[in-house]
Amino acid sequence: MGGDFAPYNVVMGALEALADFPSLKLTLVGDKEQIEKIIGESNKKSDGVEIVHTTEIITMHDSPTAAVKSKKDSSLVVGAKLVKDGKADAFVSAGNTGAMGVTSILNIGRIKGVARPTLTAPLPNAKDGFTFLADVGAFVDSKPQHLLGFAILSSIFVEGIYEIENPKVGLLNVGEEESKGYALTTETAKLLSESNLNFIGNVEGKDIFKGKADIVICDGFIGNILLKFAESIPGFLKASIKNYAGKSLANKLRIAPFSLPSLKTGFKESLSKADPDNVGGLPLLGVNGISIVGHGGSGILAIKNMILQAKRMHEKNIVNKIKEALS
Amino acid sequence: MGGDFAPYNVVMGALEALADFPSLKLTLVGDKEQIEKIIGESNKKSDGVEIVHTTEIITMHDSPTAAVKSKKDSSLVVGAKLVKDGKADAFVSAGNTGAMGVTSILNIGRIKGVARPTLTAPLPNAKDGFTFLADVGAFVDSKPQHLLGFAILSSIFVEGIYEIENPKVGLLNVGEEESKGYALTTETAKLLSESNLNFIGNVEGKDIFKGKADIVICDGFIGNILLKFAESIPGFLKASIKNYAGKSLANKLRIAPFSLPSLKTGFKESLSKADPDNVGGLPLLGVNGISIVGHGGSGILAIKNMILQAKRMHEKNIVNKIKEALS
Repeated sequence: MGGDFAPYNVVMGALEALADFPSLKLTLVGDKEQIEKIIGESNKKSDGVEIVHTTEIITMHDSPTAAVKSKKDSSLVVGAKLVKDGKADAFVSAGNTGAMGVTSILNIGRIKGVARPTLTAPLPNAKDGFTFLADVGAFVDSKPQHLLGFAILSSIFVEGIYEIENPKVGLLNVGEEESKGYALTTETAKLLSESNLNFIGNVEGKDIFKGKADIVICDGFIGNILLKFAESIPGFLKASIKNYAGKSLANKLRIAPFSLPSLKTGFKESLSKADPDNVGGLPLLGVNGISIVGHGGSGILAIKNMILQAKRMHEKNIVNKIKEALS
Repeated sequence: MGGDFAPYNVVMGALEALADFPSLKLTLVGDKEQIEKIIGESNKKSDGVEIVHTTEIITMHDSPTAAVKSKKDSSLVVGAKLVKDGKADAFVSAGNTGAMGVTSILNIGRIKGVARPTLTAPLPNAKDGFTFLADVGAFVDSKPQHLLGFAILSSIFVEGIYEIENPKVGLLNVGEEESKGYALTTETAKLLSESNLNFIGNVEGKDIFKGKADIVICDGFIGNILLKFAESIPGFLKASIKNYAGKSLANKLRIAPFSLPSLKTGFKESLSKADPDNVGGLPLLGVNGISIVGHGGSGILAIKNMILQAKRMHEKNIVNKIKEALS
């Protein structure tokens, strides 16, 4: 029931994931009648899909903690409990991000040794790979110890899922010099230097797209703002080109080849790594089970990719790897 | 002597500004011999250009406060003092940004009532205008009172120079809801609400390029990171397109029209507002005189535009307007 286009996109995305991987065991948590209707009208296979009926909905406007505590029969609460009870290996949702964090922590629980879980987001980079940004919104006002934790959790995830060996960890700062920044960054740099991580020092805003580090560590406040800023780039480019074309006939002619379908496709594809639909969802790392948080506006493809990412995390045993690293 | 290409770009930029506005009275501060050589070889008019000889240089690697205090005969110190002593109306430099901040505060001084000056940066937006970001690097660890100050200083600047009446001020946060963020943002929102400014509430990372607010207020740590991230977008786009083209002949053909000179020009021009060369430099607002900080990598055009911006700020009486507002 989570996300702007629930339950339709959620059910359809799930059925598409199932079409590609028929061995998946899917449990859809939400309003049974609506879900069954969508499945029925979809003409898609739904073999083995279970439905767990819930009666309440946590909306985007609900206060996360209060809603998770009061709406016990919401899909966000019931779904998380399925993981806790061993009835599911992973929980994915495009619902209220804050509530998804709260229900994951309260109803699935944290791994021992994790003070704060983190949302780790892949951003595309100039090296044709990803730069992972952590934290991107789970928590604001992080302490150095939390930032160290984000780096450990993200390193295990990036190494396990993206197969980047010994990923380079950078600390986001206003300059490369150690003296830059403030108490938080200075103390965090010290902790990162003393850790077993592949810490390469401070990185700046300009280094994220360059791919100087594989993982860039920052407080959830700035990470969330940066992620949303990055996601707004394609829309801004489109508007800029349109504004430019509107100014004169000469401009319009200069920019005309952009309407060639082939160029349009090429331009879009060259930036498609940034597309939230392809990213699917972001893992909440440090939770004692797989929990993936989707964009509120998730399309069918995003939901499908979120489920497939959960599948990969399960196959690669990421949660156990984190447990081992912290034990 | 400031910037990666000093003194050549600085002298040439100054002479180009003079060519456009022969009534400008320029004082070049730096190594006299080098400056005279560049002027001599330039074949450009230098009527009325004065040279103030200095013997020391503050480099990009110097610690700002220590360097400003010890290198008394550097162009960054001597130039600021010309403003203090009424011998110049404005000081512009592409030198060490931190040192430029320190010399402006120590050697020009702050306007009464200004606890912290701010660097305000224009970012292009989807509405074909600018969204101004403040602060972008003068200070980290700002208090709510400082952020209120940044909003006041930026509003006067944006209204005076860019002629946006009663500019809309947004507070950068992780969500639109008042409850989002942390103590700093909550307290700042309260101060902004109680002020005479046109405060429109919280804005998110995605709202900057959208142009939801004319001015977006944030701590200098995040502002600096966002600005450098934004400046890295063109390079990232170029790399992404190149990576895409390199993957297959089909991709290469799709993207081929990009090599058309007209499309290249059009694409570049539609994004040219973001170009630091056109922006020139960023004003350090709240200083008791005009002080403009340029990019270390400033080209000749950037230097020229920095000087022309100083001219506009002088003509529009921005410093006095700030004094009046704060008195």
